[in-house]
Amino acid sequence: MTDTPAPALDVRSDICWSDATSVTVLGRDLCTELIGQVDLGTFAFLLLTTRTPSEAEARLFNAALVSLVEHGITPNAMATRLTHLGAPESLQGAVAAGLLGLGTRFVGTIEGSAQYLAAGVAELGDAPTHADVAAAATRIVAGYRERGEHVPGVGHPIHTPVDPRAEVLLDLGLQLGFPDVAARLVRAVSAAAGEASGRALPVNVTGAIGACVVLLDLDWRIARGLGVIARTVGLVGHLREELAEPMATTLWRVTDDSASRHLHP
Amino acid sequence: MTDTPAPALDVRSDICWSDATSVTVLGRDLCTELIGQVDLGTFAFLLLTTRTPSEAEARLFNAALVSLVEHGITPNAMATRLTHLGAPESLQGAVAAGLLGLGTRFVGTIEGSAQYLAAGVAELGDAPTHADVAAAATRIVAGYRERGEHVPGVGHPIHTPVDPRAEVLLDLGLQLGFPDVAARLVRAVSAAAGEASGRALPVNVTGAIGACVVLLDLDWRIARGLGVIARTVGLVGHLREELAEPMATTLWRVTDDSASRHLHP
Amino acid sequence: MTDTPAPALDVRSDICWSDATSVTVLGRDLCTELIGQVDLGTFAFLLLTTRTPSEAEARLFNAALVSLVEHGITPNAMATRLTHLGAPESLQGAVAAGLLGLGTRFVGTIEGSAQYLAAGVAELGDAPTHADVAAAATRIVAGYRERGEHVPGVGHPIHTPVDPRAEVLLDLGLQLGFPDVAARLVRAVSAAAGEASGRALPVNVTGAIGACVVLLDLDWRIARGLGVIARTVGLVGHLREELAEPMATTLWRVTDDSASRHLHP
Amino acid sequence: MTDTPAPALDVRSDICWSDATSVTVLGRDLCTELIGQVDLGTFAFLLLTTRTPSEAEARLFNAALVSLVEHGITPNAMATRLTHLGAPESLQGAVAAGLLGLGTRFVGTIEGSAQYLAAGVAELGDAPTHADVAAAATRIVAGYRERGEHVPGVGHPIHTPVDPRAEVLLDLGLQLGFPDVAARLVRAVSAAAGEASGRALPVNVTGAIGACVVLLDLDWRIARGLGVIARTVGLVGHLREELAEPMATTLWRVTDDSASRHLHP
Repeated sequence: MTDTPAPALDVRSDICWSDATSVTVLGRDLCTELIGQVDLGTFAFLLLTTRTPSEAEARLFNAALVSLVEHGITPNAMATRLTHLGAPESLQGAVAAGLLGLGTRFVGTIEGSAQYLAAGVAELGDAPTHADVAAAATRIVAGYRERGEHVPGVGHPIHTPVDPRAEVLLDLGLQLGFPDVAARLVRAVSAAAGEASGRALPVNVTGAIGACVVLLDLDWRIARGLGVIARTVGLVGHLREELAEPMATTLWRVTDDSASRHLHP
Repeated sequence: MTDTPAPALDVRSDICWSDATSVTVLGRDLCTELIGQVDLGTFAFLLLTTRTPSEAEARLFNAALVSLVEHGITPNAMATRLTHLGAPESLQGAVAAGLLGLGTRFVGTIEGSAQYLAAGVAELGDAPTHADVAAAATRIVAGYRERGEHVPGVGHPIHTPVDPRAEVLLDLGLQLGFPDVAARLVRAVSAAAGEASGRALPVNVTGAIGACVVLLDLDWRIARGLGVIARTVGLVGHLREELAEPMATTLWRVTDDSASRHLHP
Repeated sequence: MTDTPAPALDVRSDICWSDATSVTVLGRDLCTELIGQVDLGTFAFLLLTTRTPSEAEARLFNAALVSLVEHGITPNAMATRLTHLGAPESLQGAVAAGLLGLGTRFVGTIEGSAQYLAAGVAELGDAPTHADVAAAATRIVAGYRERGEHVPGVGHPIHTPVDPRAEVLLDLGLQLGFPDVAARLVRAVSAAAGEASGRALPVNVTGAIGACVVLLDLDWRIARGLGVIARTVGLVGHLREELAEPMATTLWRVTDDSASRHLHP
Repeated sequence: MTDTPAPALDVRSDICWSDATSVTVLGRDLCTELIGQVDLGTFAFLLLTTRTPSEAEARLFNAALVSLVEHGITPNAMATRLTHLGAPESLQGAVAAGLLGLGTRFVGTIEGSAQYLAAGVAELGDAPTHADVAAAATRIVAGYRERGEHVPGVGHPIHTPVDPRAEVLLDLGLQLGFPDVAARLVRAVSAAAGEASGRALPVNVTGAIGACVVLLDLDWRIARGLGVIARTVGLVGHLREELAEPMATTLWRVTDDSASRHLHP
C-alpha cells in the first residue's frame, strides 16, 4: 500500500475572484461598482446573464421576481414555519425546507413554460402571423397531452378566468418595448390548452414569467431560479411573522388530533 | 372506536390574501402597486418589516444584500454544484443544499452581530461618548470569550486588515444620514476583539450587515435571512455557470482519487 | 371585515397514535413489540408496506439497503462535508444537503428501474419464456431511447463489465426463494441496452434494488426511499470521519484557488 | 493574466475504496461480508464507530433507532408531505425538508443529552455512589438553568409522568449487561430538573438515546445522527401513506382559509 502523489485539480470559474482589498464579480469591482450602486434584482440579472441589464430589462426582471414572492399560506410557507418550530436556530434550514417544494407542480412550471416559449419564439421569428402562432401553440399543447402531462404555465385554481399577475407582467413587457411574440405565443397556448381540455386555462404567473425569461434572454434551464429567488424572499417574510404570531404549534396539534382521532380506541 | 368530529383550525396571518381577480400583500395590491413599481429589494424590505422603506432605507438594504451575493467558489457554491450533478432536474434542491451551509461559521454570523449591536445601540442611546462605546464593546467581546466563542462579525481569512465590503457598507450608512452609533460600536468591537486576541480582526461583511440590520430596524432574529436571500441569488448564478462550464464531475473524481489513494492495495 | 368561524380540518392517518403511556404504530405497540424486538431494516419494511416481513423478506430488504449505504467520496458525501463546514451545529442540515443530490442521475434511478420492472413482471406472469423476457426488455429499452433518456438501472462508470453489488443482490433473491422473473428481466434489459448502445451496460446496484423492490412488493413510487434511507446512514458516517479527519476546508481552498487562478491579474 | 498550474488536492478518507470488481468499506468486502450478512442497523453502527458491534451492542443500537422512527403527524412529517405536494418527482427533497426540523427543539436534543451524559459518566467512574450521581445531576441542571436553556433529554408534552420509550430503552441496556451509570445519571437529571422547575420532567426518548450513545461509545457530536437516520425511515413511511391517502392539499386549503379569513373585506 503506497501513497501515490496528490492529484492536480483543474477547474475554472469566471464569476468572482478576490484578494485582500477587493472582490471582483464578472469584471466589476464589487465595492465600488455594485454595492450601493445597483439593486438586488439588477445584480441578480448580471449573475444570471453575465451582462448589465438595460433599464427596461432591470424593470421587467424585478417585476417578474416581485410577482412570485408571496401568495399567502402556501404549502412551502407551511413547511418553512413547521421546520422553524423544530429548529429555530437554523433560519437557513427553514427556508431551504420551503424551497424544496418548488417542483413540477407549483413554481417549477416556470421551467417548462420558458422552455417551450424559447423554442417556439426561435422558430416563429420576429413577425409571425396569427395563424403561425396558433399552429405553434396547438403543437405545443398536443405534445404535452400525448405525454399525459399538464401544460406548464396555464391554469390556476383561484385566479380564473385570468391570473391578474400574468396580465400585468405581459402588459409591462409590451409597455417597455419588448417584442410581442412570447406574449402572443403563451396566450395562444392558453387558448389551445383551454380548448383541448374544455375548461378555462388562463396564462398563469409562471407562464408569464416564462415569457419574461424569453424576453430577457435567460437560459430556460435556470428559469426556475427566478421562482427560487422570489420565494426565498417570501419565506423569510413568513418567518418574520411566525416569530411575532406563531401558527406552527397550533397547526401541528390540530393536524395530529384530526389525523389520528379515528385510531383512538 | 368512534370518530370524533374534525377539529377546528384557528390560525392567523396578516401577510396576504387573494381572490379570483387580485392579490393583496400587507395592504398593497400586488398587481397595481408592487409588480413593475418596486424592485425586489424594496419588496423584501416591506415583507421583513411590514412597512415601505424610505429611499435611503431601500438603498442601504439593497446594498447590504448585494454585498453578500457572491464570493467565488465557496463551500456552499460547491455544495450546490455537486448536488446539481446528481439531481439536475431539481434546481431548487441544488440551491437549498447550498443554503444549508449558511450557519454559525459563515453567513449566519449576521445573526449574532445584529443581536449584540441591537442590544448595545439600545443601551448606548443617541450620542454616546467614545468611552461609553468602547466600554460596551469590551463587555460584548468579554462575553463571547467567556463562553469560548468567536465574536461574530469580525475577522476574515482573506480580507485583512480590512474587509472592503464592510467599509463601503458602513460608509454608505453614514452618507445616507443614518445614525452613527451602530457603526461606531461594531468598529469598537473589532478593536476590542483584536486587542483581546492579539491579531487583526476587522469588521467583516457580516458585522457591517449586522449594523445595517440595526439601522433599518429589522428584527435580529431574521437577520440571517438577508444572507439567505443574497446567497440564493449567488447560487443560481453558480448553476448558470455550472451548466455552461461544469466543474462538479472533475471535483468529484479528483477528490475521490485523492481521498482514497492511500487505501488502494 | 368580519371574522368567519375557524374551519374544520378533516384529515386521516393510519400510521401511529399515542397517549400518555403508549405509542402504537400500525397496530403494534412500539414499546413492547418493536423496540428491542426488531432491527431498523425490519421496522422500515413494516412502515413501507404496512406488514411484517418474512425472514427472507427482512434479509433481502436489509441487503438492498446495505448495498447502497457507502461508495466513498461521492458528490453527496462532499456536499454533506462542505455544508457541515459552514453549519457544524446542524447535523441534520448537512445530511439533508447530501440527500438532495439523490436525483435522476445517481441513486434516484432506483425509481425508474423499479417502475419498468414492476410493469414488466406484471405483464410477463410467473413463468415467461426466454423470448418473452427478451422482447419485454427490448420494448423497455426502445421506450427510453425514443425519449432520448438513459435506461435507469444499467451501466456504471467503474463497475464494469459487472457491478458486484448487483450480482450479490440478485443472487441473494434467488437463494432466498423469491421468483426469478424480475432478475431475468433486469438482466435482459442490461443486454438489450448494451446491444442498442454498443457498450457494456451491466445491471448496476440501482437496477438490482429495483428488482428487490418488485420482489418485496413495494410501491415503485417510494423505491427511491430505499436509497434515501441507505445514504442517510452513509452520510452520518462521513460526518463522523469529517469531525476526526476534516477535508472540507482543504477542498474549499484548493477548489477556489484552482477555479479562479486564471482571473488573477 | 497568466494561468498558474492547477494545484494539488491532498485529502484523505479511510471509509471506502472501490475498483471494477469490488467495494471495500472500513476493511470489509461490501459484497461478501456485508450485503446479505448484516442488517442496516449493524452496518450503521460500523460506520459510526469503525468497529463491528457485539450482539448486545447491535441490539441496543437498533432499539435506539427504532424508538425514534415514528410518532404520528409531527411537524417534520407535515413538512415532508407538504413538500411532496409541490415536488412529487423529488422524494429526496420531501424527506430532506422533514429532516431539517430535527433541530434544538425536538430530536436534536439527543446531542445535548449525549454530551452531558458522556462528560458526567467519564467523571463519575464505574461505581459512583447515589450521592455522587445526584450531585452531578444537580450541577448539570444548574448549568442549563443559568444559561436560561431547557435541559435536553427530559420532559414531554404527552408522555408524562414517564415516556414509555425511554423506560424500555434504559431497561434494555441493563438487561443486555451494559453498565448502569448513564441510566442512573439521566434519571437523576430528570429528578433534579423536575425539582428545580416544579413539574414532572421524565426522561424522554432523546434522553434515553443519549444514554445509549454513551453505552455504545459513540461520539456525542454525531448523536443527532441517530435521530436523523431513524426519522428518515419514518418520513419515507409517511410518503408511502401520502401517496395512498393524501392529506397535504386539504391541510393547505384549510390552513390558508383559516389564516386569511380575517383579511377578507
